[in-house]
Amino acid sequence: MNNVDVCLSPELIHLFDLNKKVVVVIDIFRATSVICTALNCGIKEIIPISDLAQLNEFDKKDFLIAAERDGKIVPGFKFGNSPLHYLNNPEIKGKKLVLTTTNGTRAINLSKNDADDVIIASFLNLTAVVDFLKKRKKDVIILCSGWKGKISLEDTLFAGCVLDKLIELGFSAFSDSSFLSRQLFSDSKTNLIKFALQSSHKKRTENLGIDQDLRFCLELDRFNNVPIYNKGSIVLL
Amino acid sequence: MNNVDVCLSPELIHLFDLNKKVVVVIDIFRATSVICTALNCGIKEIIPISDLAQLNEFDKKDFLIAAERDGKIVPGFKFGNSPLHYLNNPEIKGKKLVLTTTNGTRAINLSKNDADDVIIASFLNLTAVVDFLKKRKKDVIILCSGWKGKISLEDTLFAGCVLDKLIELGFSAFSDSSFLSRQLFSDSKTNLIKFALQSSHKKRTENLGIDQDLRFCLELDRFNNVPIYNKGSIVLL
Repeated sequence: MNNVDVCLSPELIHLFDLNKKVVVVIDIFRATSVICTALNCGIKEIIPISDLAQLNEFDKKDFLIAAERDGKIVPGFKFGNSPLHYLNNPEIKGKKLVLTTTNGTRAINLSKNDADDVIIASFLNLTAVVDFLKKRKKDVIILCSGWKGKISLEDTLFAGCVLDKLIELGFSAFSDSSFLSRQLFSDSKTNLIKFALQSSHKKRTENLGIDQDLRFCLELDRFNNVPIYNKGSIVLL
Repeated sequence: MNNVDVCLSPELIHLFDLNKKVVVVIDIFRATSVICTALNCGIKEIIPISDLAQLNEFDKKDFLIAAERDGKIVPGFKFGNSPLHYLNNPEIKGKKLVLTTTNGTRAINLSKNDADDVIIASFLNLTAVVDFLKKRKKDVIILCSGWKGKISLEDTLFAGCVLDKLIELGFSAFSDSSFLSRQLFSDSKTNLIKFALQSSHKKRTENLGIDQDLRFCLELDRFNNVPIYNKGSIVLL
């Protein structure tokens, strides 16, 4: 049977062997929630970029560009890191999106070269992700994007949630980061939303008016598919 | 009032500003438990060394040398990383100990240059550590040594325990790693020893016959003092 492990920060990913594994990238608040939403609302593909400087390589005629740093839209850009920008927005239909965020796009780019597959997970597509991993029959690393390298509550919680479902399906998990993320998820079961909103990300962004975003990101199974990284961009499977 | 934060792995310590802070180094299984025990049983001072190669600089006539890697005594040395080696051992009285371990000595050496104080904590001296921090009136970083950079259950648990007591004393804590380590400690309260022994370190060392060591390391307040790093070596305050 296959194994699953949890990496709680991109700063620790070099300690994990990604070879022949599926990496599940998580950035609940908000990059992976944005990716799931954008692709389900009309965006055709998403190019994840780590550095703001690289954005100059993309012509605004051909691409929508979304840039977020420290929770805010980078000055000069129309889109940031809000999933709500993409809901019922006819402007985005069929477009290619170039996306750079503080944490999530970095996590994707750190794992894309070594893993067999890099997929994108959020509460919005939880069941689809678990089904994909069940069918894929490979070892899994769940990679939490965290906040500037530090560990984040909501990503750890969701890692524990995915892990819990994989263990129910027969996956094995041995590491202490697996144990503690699953324990945290178990603690949150009576009120997941309240528990997750204790995150420092909520406090950090309190004045940014993104409370509605955070609640949207905690909705379960709004979408029934899995974004996957393939040759430079993320598309729906 | 002062702040406390938790760094769950030495690989993340560069993300924390240690300036003017007290760093509390934790390596429950077993380096910081060894340090507390050795100093209380007759060792005069301990020189923490990160690399095995550096051991050659110390003459065995003048120093006891303890070297551990992967849970085992390094071949050629008499002492490894067992606190029990130091209990009721007349051979160690008044000696200087040179110590190198897989995780704990590295954590000490990573923080010694930037922090105001680096102190050594374990269940064996919990109350003394909390009393020290209360009197010191500085911000605190609790640094978990982990296992080869990865996060360990027993260190996270003990970090949560110290944090819990500091918050009761009025310290503030905002980070998600603080939240989750405190949550983990809260989950362990009904049976801390059973909870801590779910650690992957126990499984990893199952064939090394150190079970008695691990149980010793979970004893509470056997010693009533604080080892502190001072100009190259660790001494009792």
